[in-house]
Amino acid sequence: MNRRTLLQAGIVGAAALSTPFLIAAHAQGTGAAGQKRHKLVIQVSDNDPAKWNLALNNAKNVQEDVGAANVDIAIVAYGPGIGMLKLDSPTGGRIADAMKANVRVVACENTMRGQKLGKDDMLPAISYVPAGVTEIMKKQQDGWAYLRP
Amino acid sequence: MNRRTLLQAGIVGAAALSTPFLIAAHAQGTGAAGQKRHKLVIQVSDNDPAKWNLALNNAKNVQEDVGAANVDIAIVAYGPGIGMLKLDSPTGGRIADAMKANVRVVACENTMRGQKLGKDDMLPAISYVPAGVTEIMKKQQDGWAYLRP
Amino acid sequence: MNRRTLLQAGIVGAAALSTPFLIAAHAQGTGAAGQKRHKLVIQVSDNDPAKWNLALNNAKNVQEDVGAANVDIAIVAYGPGIGMLKLDSPTGGRIADAMKANVRVVACENTMRGQKLGKDDMLPAISYVPAGVTEIMKKQQDGWAYLRP
Repeated sequence: MNRRTLLQAGIVGAAALSTPFLIAAHAQGTGAAGQKRHKLVIQVSDNDPAKWNLALNNAKNVQEDVGAANVDIAIVAYGPGIGMLKLDSPTGGRIADAMKANVRVVACENTMRGQKLGKDDMLPAISYVPAGVTEIMKKQQDGWAYLRP
Repeated sequence: MNRRTLLQAGIVGAAALSTPFLIAAHAQGTGAAGQKRHKLVIQVSDNDPAKWNLALNNAKNVQEDVGAANVDIAIVAYGPGIGMLKLDSPTGGRIADAMKANVRVVACENTMRGQKLGKDDMLPAISYVPAGVTEIMKKQQDGWAYLRP
Repeated sequence: MNRRTLLQAGIVGAAALSTPFLIAAHAQGTGAAGQKRHKLVIQVSDNDPAKWNLALNNAKNVQEDVGAANVDIAIVAYGPGIGMLKLDSPTGGRIADAMKANVRVVACENTMRGQKLGKDDMLPAISYVPAGVTEIMKKQQDGWAYLRP
């Protein structure tokens, strides 16, 4: 077997495993070069503006610490925490700033239905998911870290 | 090297990696086809019936959102949260319903010992683990997402 | 192709994948033999000595349950939880015991700056990180389980 043949065999060996490996790599959040991108989902489920501010502080601190370009952050508000994202939220201004800084801010439509809230009742430009809890679960299973302030 | 030889080489390459790959796949909770099953461990560690109801709501919402057949859910009560699973729990009826819907409900025997509780003091048909915290840790290391309502 | 050639091809196939596999193994916290070491990061972010004691109980219970030699534990205090690690902390004695039992106890320097705390204000022999939240995020992405008592 010459060098070229060995190389071909190696490529076939790699190809045979490429599908499962890509799945594993995706789940780990590793990029093509094997470097890990930071990903953080922050849960807000308390009816407590101090917790809302803490969640926003946490997002900002992570961005400052690792560089905003190196981390994806999503804040998911659900259940008793949904008030954080209502029009009259005391943290409305800070949430707008966070979204400008590329933090994704997400409201739970399940909770909104239960509390008779429409999108007109919510802060502008936020995102929506059918169920906040599912979003938090799926993100972790896609390799995101979890934080509950 | 002909096609058949290339194929053989590929099989050997795959075989050389099959053991570690299976370990990685198990840790990720991926099935044979690479599809991810949802798994969620919910921690109850507050002495607060509102939190107990929230945990039960969260379990139900995830089941409704992704389909009960597609997600494994375990609720683990420990420390100050153990009251959720005592005979006189205000959430006893809802817990029975959750178990009928295949949510696993687990009490921490460590906590029970500390609070002089026997299985006769607890709701019927629940499960037990030696240490709730260890259960929560192991589940995450087996690829389960974590939720603390 | 003879047996020796097939074997060589297999080795090449394995070598082609060794780098990404090692990354995946590291992220999972698997050792050379594929056995998983337990790793647990415990978040303390409440200004509540009952929570501080619960965090210390949880660390101790996991060590007793799986064997202290089989688990790495880090307690990370930040935000309103930083008081746990101040010189006047009511849990100072228990924290010293935990560190003797190889629990790593970590204070957030971001929080300390915000509260004008220097290392002289803190318990002796604890560790420091620039940002507690980042530490908690990174640990999870390295395969550590997360616990918020």
